Amino acid sequence: LVQPRGPGHGARALGSTRSYTAGSLKINAARMMDSLHETCKWGAAHPYGSGPTETGMSRLTLDDNDFKARRWLAKEAESLGCTTKVDKMGNMFMFRPGKHQGHATAVGSHLDTQPTGGRYDGILGIHAALEAFRTIHENKLQTEYPLCLVNWTNEEGARFPKSITGSSVWNGDLALDKAWALQDVKDASITMRDELERGGFLGDVEASYESNPLAAHFELHIEQGPILESTGKKVGIVQGGQAYRWIDVNVHGRDCHTGSTPFETRSDAMLCASRIIVESNRIAKEHGGLASTGILRLSPGSVNTCPGHVFFTLDIRHPSTERLAALTSAIEARSRAVAGTGSERGCRLEWLETFHSPAVEFHPDCISSVREAVEANYGAESGIDVFSGAGHDTCATSKRCPSSMVFITSRDGVSHNPLEYSSPEDCAIGAQVLMDAALVYDARRTA
Amino acid sequence: LVQPRGPGHGARALGSTRSYTAGSLKINAARMMDSLHETCKWGAAHPYGSGPTETGMSRLTLDDNDFKARRWLAKEAESLGCTTKVDKMGNMFMFRPGKHQGHATAVGSHLDTQPTGGRYDGILGIHAALEAFRTIHENKLQTEYPLCLVNWTNEEGARFPKSITGSSVWNGDLALDKAWALQDVKDASITMRDELERGGFLGDVEASYESNPLAAHFELHIEQGPILESTGKKVGIVQGGQAYRWIDVNVHGRDCHTGSTPFETRSDAMLCASRIIVESNRIAKEHGGLASTGILRLSPGSVNTCPGHVFFTLDIRHPSTERLAALTSAIEARSRAVAGTGSERGCRLEWLETFHSPAVEFHPDCISSVREAVEANYGAESGIDVFSGAGHDTCATSKRCPSSMVFITSRDGVSHNPLEYSSPEDCAIGAQVLMDAALVYDARRTA
Ligand SMILES: NC(=O)NCCC(=O)O
Ligand SMILES: NC(=O)NCCC(=O)O
Repeated sequence: LVQPRGPGHGARALGSTRSYTAGSLKINAARMMDSLHETCKWGAAHPYGSGPTETGMSRLTLDDNDFKARRWLAKEAESLGCTTKVDKMGNMFMFRPGKHQGHATAVGSHLDTQPTGGRYDGILGIHAALEAFRTIHENKLQTEYPLCLVNWTNEEGARFPKSITGSSVWNGDLALDKAWALQDVKDASITMRDELERGGFLGDVEASYESNPLAAHFELHIEQGPILESTGKKVGIVQGGQAYRWIDVNVHGRDCHTGSTPFETRSDAMLCASRIIVESNRIAKEHGGLASTGILRLSPGSVNTCPGHVFFTLDIRHPSTERLAALTSAIEARSRAVAGTGSERGCRLEWLETFHSPAVEFHPDCISSVREAVEANYGAESGIDVFSGAGHDTCATSKRCPSSMVFITSRDGVSHNPLEYSSPEDCAIGAQVLMDAALVYDARRTA
Repeated sequence: LVQPRGPGHGARALGSTRSYTAGSLKINAARMMDSLHETCKWGAAHPYGSGPTETGMSRLTLDDNDFKARRWLAKEAESLGCTTKVDKMGNMFMFRPGKHQGHATAVGSHLDTQPTGGRYDGILGIHAALEAFRTIHENKLQTEYPLCLVNWTNEEGARFPKSITGSSVWNGDLALDKAWALQDVKDASITMRDELERGGFLGDVEASYESNPLAAHFELHIEQGPILESTGKKVGIVQGGQAYRWIDVNVHGRDCHTGSTPFETRSDAMLCASRIIVESNRIAKEHGGLASTGILRLSPGSVNTCPGHVFFTLDIRHPSTERLAALTSAIEARSRAVAGTGSERGCRLEWLETFHSPAVEFHPDCISSVREAVEANYGAESGIDVFSGAGHDTCATSKRCPSSMVFITSRDGVSHNPLEYSSPEDCAIGAQVLMDAALVYDARRTA
């Protein structure tokens, strides 16, 4: 038994291995990839080659393609003997009974993508989980406790601009009403609740870890970064994830004529916004963190009118929650200064934090289950301990149940881009490790 | 007779004054302001106070409000004995016969506004011209040659992003097909030709100074700048206008994840665009010119995806055509450098000039007519020679017929803003000078 490592998370000894040894079941890689690519017809976009799978994805949360993929998933899981529960956030829980009653050991991820996303971010995690269920089902394996396949709603935060939304309501960080009220980033008249209702995914079950608890949560994801590729390791044994905050910035200046207004009398919101974006980048570098602007809108939007108003987002990240706070404060202070002086007569700044995910350390029992799955299948040397740069639903679940993740190689570290790619071999490795980690964990559970 | 001044424009001696002395007719200021505010119901927007005239305007070229204002204008002019011609660009020419056949002395401006425009930019010029026609009509004044009231199409370039469009087709600088093909800045499926047709303003007359010539062109406009207010002068005797260019800039980078992509591997188009905007401002200051960004669009537009593509506009101005060329080259060179290095892996820059209006010097005969009108009505000390920071239809007409302009005070120099304001007294002064300048010019014409 590999000992749980890392700082105490209330790590408790799991029972000694009972019914399952990692590596005894083998997932069917071809079947998984077929399902993945077949269901990517719902949302395929941005072709980059002539092959049928050489496209990215644009399957935004609760759009028609997402509905189709969700219905397909429930049907597949039910054909494997699962029972589906949908909660008030549209989170889908597909339960497979075990020998004993008890909370389920969950494997989950998300079916939604970025507008210019790839075929792997989230999608692979769901298909790997489904493949685990198929393998377990066809091998008639009885687990100790129930398993649960989870599809979390709006992980990306692309359409409704708050990431890991469904799992954050489930874990109690985000009020249901606030999540329901989130507006489509391109059409403020559409709320998340409207779309849940439209698709038939406004479930009855409370979106809550209290009324719908899980025993543990595992997730396979592509790394979305460069470490596995550059080290040649095959599996990332994820120790946790970095902290991040999202900010809505509004710069209020004064519309003016681009030709007849001397610089000295301007309050040019676009000039101030540009300076703030440049400064946020500089300060993030100084602090060893990240800052990025993904959305910017200005008004009125005429070539010869300096914009009186600019809205933009800042996504600020740092491995440490405390240092993220310091970085964010530094950017805010500098932004206020720049707004005041960056265009001669000054602009007014509004700064609103819309999301905060503190740094997360995953649970040693889950990490050790992943490690055992790696060692048994591919040898200890194929794994490497990593941290996640991106946020994941597992960061949210880890607040309420032991959780951890498995990463596989992303080509060129590319993600949130149609060219995102992981080889079928790597996808298979990830799925095998995911299944075995969950089964090892289940086998060791004492309750 | 005030001598024509300034560098030779082929200035020719006008005949000695025949039938008209500046100041002998008086415009009806109240009637003009009533018409102006009454017709601002078509497009009134952005209220800033509770009074009925305390709003700005949003009457975009060839929108429904523009159509209403245009139809009203033709009807009013026709009730004063005018005949309306509409050309293929929707430019409206309302002719009033004179004693002799010949090309008309024109007074014109535009009815379209910025999306966050005011009640005076363009609109005042049309209403002052109409008031001149009303005054001349009720006084049964017979001019030597025909007069013409012109409403030029899409002066602002706000909806169809090329300014002084109608007058630039008329003067031969812009091909009709190119103008017709201009796309609505918010909906590329709508062309200018579509909208001309929809409103019934796709006329039969060639949009050309050759088939539809004018003898001269005068325009009253608000200054949109600070000089009159700061000097306490009442009338700007406009000598010409500065040069300007519009550029479409496309920055092509690579969509990437804001959380898992280290800075070193990014091609962040928004970061590069921000740096370019900041640099364009710095370089314009160094060159004594202006540079401004009024439109910016990015894609895909998701908080946690660095934009792979940013489109934005640059509006670059300088009093000198040559120095504008140097300034524009300097900004282009720096933009290319910044695109290459401003985000670590570099972005690709596309730079496309969409509009160029060289510096203009107005015609001495027209300038002297304005000067005489100022002196006769308000005394020489109330006038001041100024240059225009903004572009105007008169800059386009001046290439093909003697042309000049009259400016009145803009409160705080504010324009392209709902708060744009000129007092009724100042509007009246401008209208009186406009009428008299045209009548003085007409009286002096020898052919
Ligand atoms: N894995 C992933 O792309 N999550 C989106 C949430 C974020 O990190 O912004
Ligand atoms: N006068 C005016 O606002 N014209 C618009 C053309 C320009 O200068 O951009």
